[in-house]
Amino acid sequence: MKAREAIVLAMMVLTVVLAASGQEGNAKAAAAIRKADQDWMAAFAAKDVNQAASFVAPGGAMYEPNAPATLGQEAIKKSLGGMFQMTGEKLTWTPTLVEAAKSGDLGFSSGTYEFSFKDPSGKTVNDKGKYVTVWKKQPDGSWKVVRDIFNSDLPAGH
Amino acid sequence: MKAREAIVLAMMVLTVVLAASGQEGNAKAAAAIRKADQDWMAAFAAKDVNQAASFVAPGGAMYEPNAPATLGQEAIKKSLGGMFQMTGEKLTWTPTLVEAAKSGDLGFSSGTYEFSFKDPSGKTVNDKGKYVTVWKKQPDGSWKVVRDIFNSDLPAGH
Repeated sequence: MKAREAIVLAMMVLTVVLAASGQEGNAKAAAAIRKADQDWMAAFAAKDVNQAASFVAPGGAMYEPNAPATLGQEAIKKSLGGMFQMTGEKLTWTPTLVEAAKSGDLGFSSGTYEFSFKDPSGKTVNDKGKYVTVWKKQPDGSWKVVRDIFNSDLPAGH
Repeated sequence: MKAREAIVLAMMVLTVVLAASGQEGNAKAAAAIRKADQDWMAAFAAKDVNQAASFVAPGGAMYEPNAPATLGQEAIKKSLGGMFQMTGEKLTWTPTLVEAAKSGDLGFSSGTYEFSFKDPSGKTVNDKGKYVTVWKKQPDGSWKVVRDIFNSDLPAGH
């Protein structure tokens, strides 16, 4: 084998390997995001403020309805702390569409949520809606939240 | 140069080229998403239903507050048509964070919006809030909306 043939062969092999790893990285990254999405929900279910906030990337933000943006882990801890103290508070969500870029460094989860709590009179209030969470792979390999946003399906003032 | 040395050299060159193109693709893709974000806003400003809906990818959805998800171009056309008919309707937005994956096939824009219209009594109603739009590069090279979601900064019932 001559040098030039060897170079061409190496390039062909690399092209195939990279194309295949790109495809695989996509599905693998999407699966990792889906897992992170559900691990995050488990931290909410456990009402663990520190654990839940730890899923937010540096500079990450939560965009809650009817409130200014909550920017950064410390502000998010305060916001979640308030939420977790609501009587009978329960939040679950179901990702219905999860995708990741071929490069496996950025992706999103989106879907539906159900939220309930008891008002001061003890009556259960039920909300349901939809969400989009943008996830970014961190230098340590973990997936963290860059932006999380949701809103209600129910008429305003419900 | 022996064949083995040629392969090693080719691989080193390719690694550097790919790493560099990955970096460039990111910034270039983010700039393309920022442009698409603002082109989309121009279609809203022109109250052009077909043009505005054309920015939505097949299977794409808009998640409006206090309404179920609006899925697909036809449903989005209907929704936008209603919005554009509101008296004095004006919607503008400003992307404050735009990022794209290294592979340049997926990214997002996020930021703030301002929305105003006149109610039946002729009084101007002002809303402001935040949004996240997930963009996906299409086979024809254009960027289209996979998910768009927003909510208000103002207290409920404002």
